[in-house]
Amino acid sequence: MLRILKIGGNVLVDPQALDQTLSLFASYESPAILVHGGGREASDLLKKMGHEAKMVNGRRITDAATLEVVTMVYAGLINKQLVAQLQAKNCNALGVSGADGNLIQAHKRVVKEIDYGFAGDIDAINTAGFKSLLEGGFFPVCCAITHDKQGQLLNTNADTIASSIAVALVAAYEVELLYCFEKPGVLQDAEDDASVIEHIHPGSYAELKQQVVVHSGMLPKLDNAFAAIANGVRAVYVGNLESLQSGRATRLSL
Amino acid sequence: MLRILKIGGNVLVDPQALDQTLSLFASYESPAILVHGGGREASDLLKKMGHEAKMVNGRRITDAATLEVVTMVYAGLINKQLVAQLQAKNCNALGVSGADGNLIQAHKRVVKEIDYGFAGDIDAINTAGFKSLLEGGFFPVCCAITHDKQGQLLNTNADTIASSIAVALVAAYEVELLYCFEKPGVLQDAEDDASVIEHIHPGSYAELKQQVVVHSGMLPKLDNAFAAIANGVRAVYVGNLESLQSGRATRLSL
Repeated sequence: MLRILKIGGNVLVDPQALDQTLSLFASYESPAILVHGGGREASDLLKKMGHEAKMVNGRRITDAATLEVVTMVYAGLINKQLVAQLQAKNCNALGVSGADGNLIQAHKRVVKEIDYGFAGDIDAINTAGFKSLLEGGFFPVCCAITHDKQGQLLNTNADTIASSIAVALVAAYEVELLYCFEKPGVLQDAEDDASVIEHIHPGSYAELKQQVVVHSGMLPKLDNAFAAIANGVRAVYVGNLESLQSGRATRLSL
Repeated sequence: MLRILKIGGNVLVDPQALDQTLSLFASYESPAILVHGGGREASDLLKKMGHEAKMVNGRRITDAATLEVVTMVYAGLINKQLVAQLQAKNCNALGVSGADGNLIQAHKRVVKEIDYGFAGDIDAINTAGFKSLLEGGFFPVCCAITHDKQGQLLNTNADTIASSIAVALVAAYEVELLYCFEKPGVLQDAEDDASVIEHIHPGSYAELKQQVVVHSGMLPKLDNAFAAIANGVRAVYVGNLESLQSGRATRLSL
């Protein structure tokens, strides 16, 4: 079994939650990949350097200065801090971007209505490269930076990276994908954290969308998740640290 | 044969020289490791963020803010740019710090007269980890950041990293170490770039030191090099891009 754990911005800024999340990841005995973003710290540094982060539809507009900063923060500071903390927990973490080992090749997003700048849309996951690292006993820690194989680094959505890796590796492993975010799961009632929906299958997902239980920020995450399931990922779990640990996170599967 | 190429700050700030140096590295058909520092860009960013770089005896004093910046610049920006450019040249580069795969374990330098802050002195090179990457077909690109295996990242001299890796890997490979810097080699006359000394062995090195031909910044580099040779490294080359390519760099060996 291969687990792919995606952690979001909220976990990264809370040292205690982060420590516990890394302990969960370090407890995995079968191969596992950690995927992380790091939005807030990049925005803070941009501000310090006199830039403002620009967002459209939840996606960062990546100009050249922003790309330098997200590369420094995601691939440098956050990635290496995560790796060092995992190593301290005896997890043989190895930090990578999509450029390393050509693990994730992308292209600069084509300009239609909005120019997202140096935003990368994924073309290919290097399955052999990931297998080589996993079989070497490494636990890849993957930041949200890819490249175009022509020397250009690109900023890429971390949720998409996680699901793309999951789908690519179903040929070699039985894959489970775990999204760790601030909520204990997909909620029947957005105001009630106790209303976690235990299991969603493609049929009930269609209903939840129709009833507008699932909307806005949750939609792309779950659309992504069901696309991964349609492509052979065994299950996707959506929850926070506690619910993922206790098995009470929302389980998406066929 | 395993080549370890160390590139310094001057190469990193000149795009054309860097491109040619990366072409040289990408031309290696046998396993190779690239080691880089990146002093100037880190100093520039520190300034932009309102800090000043502090140096004592050619070594940076690494306070907490400086450590964050060097981690961002060395392990993030520079490392990923080098990897992306090498990948564009069809070299299967994979960027690492000493924390990744626990490749280079160090300890925080003991405070004697000077407190160097988060400066790391190397304790152990993970030979099996490097072998696993090299045998997986990866060309490691190693930045000058290590860790203490207890969660702390540390800033470490890149020359020392290069020679330590070289010595550790003599058990598995025939190792050559190449230092690429601004001069064509060790010069008989510091003012004359044509006065490159072709070959230095331990006996002639003692003489050059006595005659003060080798002094100041060159001394620790060559002391390091001869320590590596004493520990089984077959040869160390000291030169710039042109002399390393043409074979006219200074060759140090027994």
